[in-house]
Amino acid sequence: MTTDNGITFVNVVDVDPARQAELVALLQEGAERVIRHRPGFVSLTLLASADGSRVVNLARWRSADDVRATQADPAAAEYAARTAAIANARPGLYTVAAQYDA
Amino acid sequence: MTTDNGITFVNVVDVDPARQAELVALLQEGAERVIRHRPGFVSLTLLASADGSRVVNLARWRSADDVRATQADPAAAEYAARTAAIANARPGLYTVAAQYDA
Repeated sequence: MTTDNGITFVNVVDVDPARQAELVALLQEGAERVIRHRPGFVSLTLLASADGSRVVNLARWRSADDVRATQADPAAAEYAARTAAIANARPGLYTVAAQYDA
Repeated sequence: MTTDNGITFVNVVDVDPARQAELVALLQEGAERVIRHRPGFVSLTLLASADGSRVVNLARWRSADDVRATQADPAAAEYAARTAAIANARPGLYTVAAQYDA
């Protein structure tokens, strides 16, 4: 087991399965146009549930301050608002409690 | 952007913040004793929310069949039952829709 002190922003987004593809496309656009260019960005993974009802957005950052500065960025806030218009988002800050690799 | 066809098991677990540490310890024990030894296991990350109310368990697997076989394993089912006794779990199968790296 290894641990690190990296900060992860996790957004668990519930969505009508009929709109999951639209939601994924919107989150991809936000990642490509805004998030990946922000200071402190490390990586972002979009996970789409097989049942269509959820998308999980995982973004690693250098620090919690980098996340907060991104959330305050008007361009990022616009994508958050567009997400909220078509889905139910529950964003939050997380730390890695444990990591195991095969 | 890159994508792959890897299967990710995501378990979003809501918990009373007073029991988050207990939940993390239980999920660590299950990972160490059972999950990491299962066929098809690739990696597992436990994320603990800063507000204490949630833990996200992300496990990468070679295939969806490996996940289903693990869920059918009595030792894994015991940990799932112990998790359900102290928290509210929402497990599901996901695919990686997009990946971005700095």
